Amino acid sequence: MAYDPQNVFAKILRSELPCIKLYEDADTFAMMDIMPQSDGHLLVLTREPAETVFDMSEAALQRCILITRKLAAAAVSALGADGALISQFNGAAAGQTVPHVHFHVIPRFAGVAMKSHGREREDMARLEEIARRIIAALPSAQ
Amino acid sequence: MAYDPQNVFAKILRSELPCIKLYEDADTFAMMDIMPQSDGHLLVLTREPAETVFDMSEAALQRCILITRKLAAAAVSALGADGALISQFNGAAAGQTVPHVHFHVIPRFAGVAMKSHGREREDMARLEEIARRIIAALPSAQ
Repeated sequence: MAYDPQNVFAKILRSELPCIKLYEDADTFAMMDIMPQSDGHLLVLTREPAETVFDMSEAALQRCILITRKLAAAAVSALGADGALISQFNGAAAGQTVPHVHFHVIPRFAGVAMKSHGREREDMARLEEIARRIIAALPSAQ
Repeated sequence: MAYDPQNVFAKILRSELPCIKLYEDADTFAMMDIMPQSDGHLLVLTREPAETVFDMSEAALQRCILITRKLAAAAVSALGADGALISQFNGAAAGQTVPHVHFHVIPRFAGVAMKSHGREREDMARLEEIARRIIAALPSAQ
C-alpha cells in the first residue's frame, strides 16, 4: 500500500503533533507510547516513509534495531525491569494500528501482567516522569 | 547471567538435537517453532552464544533483523498471510523460555486469533509441509 504521509507518526516526525520524546537522531525517533502495556512502554520509529518492516531500507532497519536495543536497555535500567519485550506489527491483521513502521519496547516486571494493546490512555504527568528517568539512563554518546 | 551452552537452541545449533530447519548462514539459523502460535510461526537465531538481545554484538543483531525480515517475507508470501508479528523476549519475566536470543516471526491471518505461546505441540508432518513452502518462497540469493 502507498505510504500515507498524514498518519499520526508522520505528523509527530514533522513536529505537527506533540509527543513525549525520548531520543532522536538523523535516522530514528523514540517516544513514549501513550497507551502503554506496561510502565516504560516506548516506540522506536524510522524516519523513512515506510508502512511496514518490508518497506524499509536495510540500513534503516539495521539502525532501528540498534536504537531499539539502546532504548530497551535504558528503560530496563531506569525502571528496574526484570525483562523486556521487543515487538513489531506488520499489517492490521497483526495488530498494526498506525501505518508507519515502529518497534515496541515493553519492559516487563515479574508477576505483573501486560495490559492490552492500545486500550487505555496513561496520565501524561506520569508518562513524562517515566520518560525523564529513561532519558537519564541513556548513554550520552552513541 | 552466564550463557548456558546446554540450552536446547545451543544444542540445535550444534546439530545435537533435531529441528525443522528453514535457513542457515555463517551468522544465523532459522527453524519452525514446534509449538506455533499460528501457521508459519518460525524462529531466527544468532549463532553467537548470547542469552538476550543485550548480550549480542551489534553486527549479530543487525544481521539477525535482516534475516528475520527475509524469513517473514517468505512466510507471508508462502502462506498468503495478511500480516506478520515480529517479537523478541528478553528474560523470563518477558516470556523468554529458552536462554538463547531468538526472534519470533508469527504470520497473522485476518480473523484468526493467535494461540498462546509454547502451549501446544504441532503435528510434525504439517510443520514440515509448511516449512517446504516457506523455503520455496525464500530468494535463492541473499
